[in-house]
Amino acid sequence: MTTNSSPQLWLYDTTLRDGTQREGLSVSIEDKLRIAKRLDQLGVPFIEGGWPGANPKDVQFFWQLQEDPLKQAEIVAFCSTRRPNTSTADEPMLQAILAAGTRWVTIFGKSWDLHVTAGLKTTLEENLVMIADTIEFLRSQGRRVIYDAEHWFDGYKQNPSYALQTLEVAIAAGAEWLVLCDTNGGSLPHEVSQVVEVVNSQQSMTKNKGQMTIPQIGIHTHNDSEMAVANALAAVMAGATMVQGTINGYGERCGNANLCSLIPNLQLKLGYSCITEDQLAQLTEVSRFVSEVVNLAPDEHAPFVGRSAFAHKGGIHVSAVERNPLTYEHIQPEQVGNRRRIVISEQSGLSNVLAKARTFGIELDKLKAEAKQILQRLKDLESEGFQFEAAEASFALLMHEALGGRQQFFEIKGFQVHCDLIEGKEDSNALATVKVAVSGKNILEAAEGNGPVAALDAALRKALVNFYPQIATFDLTDYKVRILNGHTGTAAKTRVLVESGNGHQRWTTVGVSTNILEASYQAVVEGLEYGLLLHSQAEAALKV
Amino acid sequence: MTTNSSPQLWLYDTTLRDGTQREGLSVSIEDKLRIAKRLDQLGVPFIEGGWPGANPKDVQFFWQLQEDPLKQAEIVAFCSTRRPNTSTADEPMLQAILAAGTRWVTIFGKSWDLHVTAGLKTTLEENLVMIADTIEFLRSQGRRVIYDAEHWFDGYKQNPSYALQTLEVAIAAGAEWLVLCDTNGGSLPHEVSQVVEVVNSQQSMTKNKGQMTIPQIGIHTHNDSEMAVANALAAVMAGATMVQGTINGYGERCGNANLCSLIPNLQLKLGYSCITEDQLAQLTEVSRFVSEVVNLAPDEHAPFVGRSAFAHKGGIHVSAVERNPLTYEHIQPEQVGNRRRIVISEQSGLSNVLAKARTFGIELDKLKAEAKQILQRLKDLESEGFQFEAAEASFALLMHEALGGRQQFFEIKGFQVHCDLIEGKEDSNALATVKVAVSGKNILEAAEGNGPVAALDAALRKALVNFYPQIATFDLTDYKVRILNGHTGTAAKTRVLVESGNGHQRWTTVGVSTNILEASYQAVVEGLEYGLLLHSQAEAALKV
Repeated sequence: MTTNSSPQLWLYDTTLRDGTQREGLSVSIEDKLRIAKRLDQLGVPFIEGGWPGANPKDVQFFWQLQEDPLKQAEIVAFCSTRRPNTSTADEPMLQAILAAGTRWVTIFGKSWDLHVTAGLKTTLEENLVMIADTIEFLRSQGRRVIYDAEHWFDGYKQNPSYALQTLEVAIAAGAEWLVLCDTNGGSLPHEVSQVVEVVNSQQSMTKNKGQMTIPQIGIHTHNDSEMAVANALAAVMAGATMVQGTINGYGERCGNANLCSLIPNLQLKLGYSCITEDQLAQLTEVSRFVSEVVNLAPDEHAPFVGRSAFAHKGGIHVSAVERNPLTYEHIQPEQVGNRRRIVISEQSGLSNVLAKARTFGIELDKLKAEAKQILQRLKDLESEGFQFEAAEASFALLMHEALGGRQQFFEIKGFQVHCDLIEGKEDSNALATVKVAVSGKNILEAAEGNGPVAALDAALRKALVNFYPQIATFDLTDYKVRILNGHTGTAAKTRVLVESGNGHQRWTTVGVSTNILEASYQAVVEGLEYGLLLHSQAEAALKV
Repeated sequence: MTTNSSPQLWLYDTTLRDGTQREGLSVSIEDKLRIAKRLDQLGVPFIEGGWPGANPKDVQFFWQLQEDPLKQAEIVAFCSTRRPNTSTADEPMLQAILAAGTRWVTIFGKSWDLHVTAGLKTTLEENLVMIADTIEFLRSQGRRVIYDAEHWFDGYKQNPSYALQTLEVAIAAGAEWLVLCDTNGGSLPHEVSQVVEVVNSQQSMTKNKGQMTIPQIGIHTHNDSEMAVANALAAVMAGATMVQGTINGYGERCGNANLCSLIPNLQLKLGYSCITEDQLAQLTEVSRFVSEVVNLAPDEHAPFVGRSAFAHKGGIHVSAVERNPLTYEHIQPEQVGNRRRIVISEQSGLSNVLAKARTFGIELDKLKAEAKQILQRLKDLESEGFQFEAAEASFALLMHEALGGRQQFFEIKGFQVHCDLIEGKEDSNALATVKVAVSGKNILEAAEGNGPVAALDAALRKALVNFYPQIATFDLTDYKVRILNGHTGTAAKTRVLVESGNGHQRWTTVGVSTNILEASYQAVVEGLEYGLLLHSQAEAALKV
């Protein structure tokens, strides 16, 4: 429970800068603006927007935010210290960061002596002057400064007194935050604790001298040892008050500290105050929103926000979860905007089926024959290789069928696919013909595609769209193939999962056959059927 | 550096039991046997194979291992304590675990009072008897017992004295290991440390009484708070000597502790001894092998073993990395069998091609045009979605082609597939026709199959077997399909891997296309071609 007495922590999101270093991730200015606004709603107080000195596109991003500013967050521009043996006045990077027009800037500098001498090829003394100069210059221009101490932990291990000196000059120059960075991601939590405690005690010494305002300490971690979140927690428990990270842990190599795990751990488990309870309940949605915008598949197994994070398998277990969720779940899923999900699988018992049916609005009586019939049918299909864990739409159709309420929108009379694999290469090398009956009328249609499944899907839509115009809004959004008992070669069974969408909902269907096209066909047909079912339910609801 | 003086830790892999609880993961007995053998080579001392009492398929797995036993690992069967108010003699689960015929068994029992009263609906006293009975029974049957204390950390928080009592009865009954489980994955490292220290000190008290052998402590963690690896490390640092986890962190909900991160952290950073240096250098390969066998896309951003884990982006940074890698990399990638990857760099690619060619007995000169041509062709193909890591036979053919030495055994003139998906159901619903030229002679053949790929393969063999009788010994042994950039539905590209065999060798080929049949056809054709190449090389060798 977050109360006013909880110690305050400042979140600092760097999805838009460090996060975009992830291999395979690229974002437009428009994407960045959408993400910044979403983070603003989430209540993140600092949002690092980019490095205008290194990436000219980033300047535009900052300008557009000046036109249409964020509600509560500070947007921060990022930059290195000036280069060796230049003056701040002649440094184009610093001109670019001023042009970004933000109140806050983050300046990163070298903490590790070796990076100064071997990387920058300058003296240890000059590096200290570079840090001081740059911060003083920005202060003189009215900016507030966060200082990122790059490679801090490795630098401190090699040469602690020099590493501490770099912080001292940053403090003296007017930095308000000192952010300790585990840039290579190699540190372990006990090391982070110890080092943060040392810096904290040094800080107190400075304070006792009464010479200057004491900056607060921040932490910036990477996940190369699978420790980014644990290291950030260790730093906070040792006295850090700013936590840097990215949504979904995006970042270079193995990623940055994942804010989607950090925030709930800090707030629900350690009692710190970061964002409001209502904002925390948006976390799952924000995670998925960002993955959609950057066009990466969401990690279904992500802690707290993943689709599987509160999924339960197995019989006795499920009834126990429903009776007393907190004995099987470390937090309430709703606190982070996620939900419990009962997985239907081989091991499922009757209580799973009943719980699942309830999520589709169907109340089954466990003493009645139907429930047992559904369970039996489920087990038969699963022994054939069907899997309903990820194919809830097929499961819903199966339940409607068992209850006698499966609406027949169309009937497939025949389906043929022809592929010419050598000649006519590349596009349109597959042809499908379909014969469908709708309300007693037969329709024969043919369509081409750049593969047999695309052709199959196209022919079916062509045949049905005159009867069901809403099909034009349906879309095949994902297609997955798994070969079952693969070790018998091409005679093995194939399981196909098809995800379909209608612009605001998505659903998944399944097909299984030794023939990969037959399996695809089953899943595609059920995908269309379930879409039509959703549409007719929505229409029925409107009429009520 | 692992030396004899490093403290010894015992790894316990549960990929084949807890790992298979991951949503969407399913494995055949054959898959499980392959994984067990690979873990055995990796040097994991304990491999949990399954729960024979809950999953009848698992019994077969244990029997097959009795026929063809592992080299060094103990294979462990898993089971719960007997049910309330039964006797061990009447408990079919315990009969099943004895039937598995393993030397070691792992028994899990309840530590949390609430799970006993509300979940099992029995008394706290009876639960203690259940634990004692079950372990004593298995000891009397000559089994060695590992005791998994389920929900240990949550149970201890609620009712420490009862939780400790459950361990005491397990010790008294003869358990040799006490494994503390964070079943819900909600604990944080500082809590784990404290609790493990308490158990350790209790253990020492028991020891002082001199009544029984002191079992060692193990740790079993889940990743719901993104703390599975950090919690396991915390437990080890507090005195645990067995670490349970899974390859790639597979497991229910958010997964189990990831051995691919745990092992290098323990061994390279904390100085514990788990496996040999040579075995550690297999880690990346094992991670990818397991993900291939269970047919899940490897996590490219996984710590230590991911393809991006040591990826550096271009620019000044790269030359700095090359000059002094340890200032930019937390470990040497080769220690875990991974490699540094310079993103977009001709140089790194070339040396890789040279190394790969050498594995096929081909010495390329990096200054000659051929090497650069192969590299270019490889890059073109990889950007189309080809991947040669698991398809060495296709890579070998590609090299022969670039060197002008690709033997043409046959030429495909035309290939067509026809499927009738509704009528004539089940078997033989696919028909393939092929036109092939062998030494200037055209052959036209047709064949049926229970799927289009089987039909395609059959037609091709039929056309070629009169010219190359050895084809009769070839066999399609595995077939895997992966959809690339899946979020564009059926127009996505498909990558097919086909494994072929000739009774004593196996090889894998790859095909990529938007058309799944085209991709399959490419891989099947190259599979036959490589088989013919192997045969002709063997004949040539005999003649020498």
